[in-house]
Amino acid sequence: MPGDERYVRGRDRFLEVHDEKALRAVEGLGDLGRAIVEFVYGDVYTRTGLSIRDREIAAVATLVALGRSSQLPQHLRASLKVGITPDELSEIVLQTATIAGFPPALNAMSQLKSVLVEGGARTAPST
Amino acid sequence: MPGDERYVRGRDRFLEVHDEKALRAVEGLGDLGRAIVEFVYGDVYTRTGLSIRDREIAAVATLVALGRSSQLPQHLRASLKVGITPDELSEIVLQTATIAGFPPALNAMSQLKSVLVEGGARTAPST
Amino acid sequence: MPGDERYVRGRDRFLEVHDEKALRAVEGLGDLGRAIVEFVYGDVYTRTGLSIRDREIAAVATLVALGRSSQLPQHLRASLKVGITPDELSEIVLQTATIAGFPPALNAMSQLKSVLVEGGARTAPST
Amino acid sequence: MPGDERYVRGRDRFLEVHDEKALRAVEGLGDLGRAIVEFVYGDVYTRTGLSIRDREIAAVATLVALGRSSQLPQHLRASLKVGITPDELSEIVLQTATIAGFPPALNAMSQLKSVLVEGGARTAPST
Amino acid sequence: MPGDERYVRGRDRFLEVHDEKALRAVEGLGDLGRAIVEFVYGDVYTRTGLSIRDREIAAVATLVALGRSSQLPQHLRASLKVGITPDELSEIVLQTATIAGFPPALNAMSQLKSVLVEGGARTAPST
Amino acid sequence: MPGDERYVRGRDRFLEVHDEKALRAVEGLGDLGRAIVEFVYGDVYTRTGLSIRDREIAAVATLVALGRSSQLPQHLRASLKVGITPDELSEIVLQTATIAGFPPALNAMSQLKSVLVEGGARTAPST
Repeated sequence: MPGDERYVRGRDRFLEVHDEKALRAVEGLGDLGRAIVEFVYGDVYTRTGLSIRDREIAAVATLVALGRSSQLPQHLRASLKVGITPDELSEIVLQTATIAGFPPALNAMSQLKSVLVEGGARTAPST
Repeated sequence: MPGDERYVRGRDRFLEVHDEKALRAVEGLGDLGRAIVEFVYGDVYTRTGLSIRDREIAAVATLVALGRSSQLPQHLRASLKVGITPDELSEIVLQTATIAGFPPALNAMSQLKSVLVEGGARTAPST
Repeated sequence: MPGDERYVRGRDRFLEVHDEKALRAVEGLGDLGRAIVEFVYGDVYTRTGLSIRDREIAAVATLVALGRSSQLPQHLRASLKVGITPDELSEIVLQTATIAGFPPALNAMSQLKSVLVEGGARTAPST
Repeated sequence: MPGDERYVRGRDRFLEVHDEKALRAVEGLGDLGRAIVEFVYGDVYTRTGLSIRDREIAAVATLVALGRSSQLPQHLRASLKVGITPDELSEIVLQTATIAGFPPALNAMSQLKSVLVEGGARTAPST
Repeated sequence: MPGDERYVRGRDRFLEVHDEKALRAVEGLGDLGRAIVEFVYGDVYTRTGLSIRDREIAAVATLVALGRSSQLPQHLRASLKVGITPDELSEIVLQTATIAGFPPALNAMSQLKSVLVEGGARTAPST
Repeated sequence: MPGDERYVRGRDRFLEVHDEKALRAVEGLGDLGRAIVEFVYGDVYTRTGLSIRDREIAAVATLVALGRSSQLPQHLRASLKVGITPDELSEIVLQTATIAGFPPALNAMSQLKSVLVEGGARTAPST
């Protein structure tokens, strides 16, 4: 079945970017979760024209700017996993403040602090 | 005067990222333009914790997601100038569609096409 | 007093769409609550050009897209009351993801699941 | 090739909802256009859990609320094609004003008037 | 008829805030226009708890922040009419940049410049 | 050092508008917090072209319209401190509903009620 192949590919990529716990949460949302695995991770995140690092920079900046605080921590963790440093994440949030205003940046910086604490980040941002 | 030093630093960085024509447009907006040169380019864009390339990925993604079509072309041009390829910009727009929906991505892709045509881009995106 | 007649009409319609508990919450917000009862329910929701079912489809889709999570559960319940099925609500959320992105759809789907559980919905969405 | 089958299915559904001219515009946007045809129309719009009529009510309301004026006229035309009346569209716009404010509703109502004039709509909205 | 009294009250207040040309545009939008005259100007703008000057500060700031460029010029003109100076409007726009980001503020400042030129404003903002 | 002078000026103005507790929260956010103190309060809030009262009207209206609920209570308290009455704040929220819709206004009015209760406000809004 064609759909299955996309799902498996998306699932594999999803697990590279995020983790098992996040996958279970998405899979608990039925066909919407399936669309996310197949389309976002199976179709888009497997494309070769942009590195995962650059995709996560775009994802984090966009989630901050739109105030999507429920999804931001997961992409902050994915960013750390792919090698974006805490200081770089802090700079992305500051940069976003110029385009979307300080309030969503304030919320995002608090969430970044929490993600770094929870991860026992040895390299805390110097900010 | 302390302010002047920030302004000069911001003006220099602004011209590296954008160009003279864009600077004149911003300077034509009075104290708001001054705040952009001093704060956005003098304070933020001169920070060393994030590359200009990564700043532009964040800027483009954010402008697409928020539907800020007046400012997007200038940052698409700045992205090309700093070495982000047309294909990478096309991928950033596609990625943004998953977070902010297809309508702003559609508008952005049309604008990207126009920017590439106007620049006589030899490397058109393969999309 | 003319205002009273609009208020009574709005109150009646509000109670058809929502319930007593929701009305008390709105009435606890003073003149803003009064404006909602009179204008939204007395003037708009009593208009005959669009069915209540169609109004709720529009309301749910709009609340999802704008990320208005505080008001969404009440309109999900109103949708069920007016005969929109859990599966249809699930489809509306999925559809909304294409226009506003996956993050607000994810939040909405979680809220829909909670509303269905709290209501002891016998017909859980097949998603 | 599995992708092709999705594309054909999406293309057929796209042409039922919109028209050839709209398809050419989307296909002119490369892989983003392909994603829209495959995912939005091939995957989502072909699902059976919600009527096309209800999908268009959700689409129009969402586009109005988010101020997506570039995509709204095409979905207003699609709505008329699927049997939503001019008066119903006018009501959807008015309803949206209560959730997203009057400014985007004002813009949408002007666009609806233009779409109806261009289509020589015999049944002008009574508003 | 109760509605008529609200309409007349709203129409009078609308003409104090804006002008005949703006009223004709709103009245050309049918029942949505009627709702604006009756509810926004007849019910809300006639309330005594906040001065018209303060209402226009709130209206301008909100329209800038939401990027509602179609409605902004009319409220910039209304602000000038009620005694808010060009310099104060320029400050409101700058202030808004801190909360909603620079892009919508840039667009708004261009619109303010146009409104001042068109009005032959003798007191151009010093910015 | 030029930066220090801006920081001290911003810090003083911040404390006039808000309080020590709010300053500690902002200072806990590193360079983003520093940018807020220096730019928002040192550069913008110290400008003489607009009264603090008018700045707070703009700030509150904008935060309500954008749904920035994390920052709203602090600016509601700042508004009370600068002499905006509870009734005026209630009117600003109601006015905002016409431009941004009722859902964000509902949330804001609940937050205003909480701020007034916590402050033991003797002059509760008459709404």
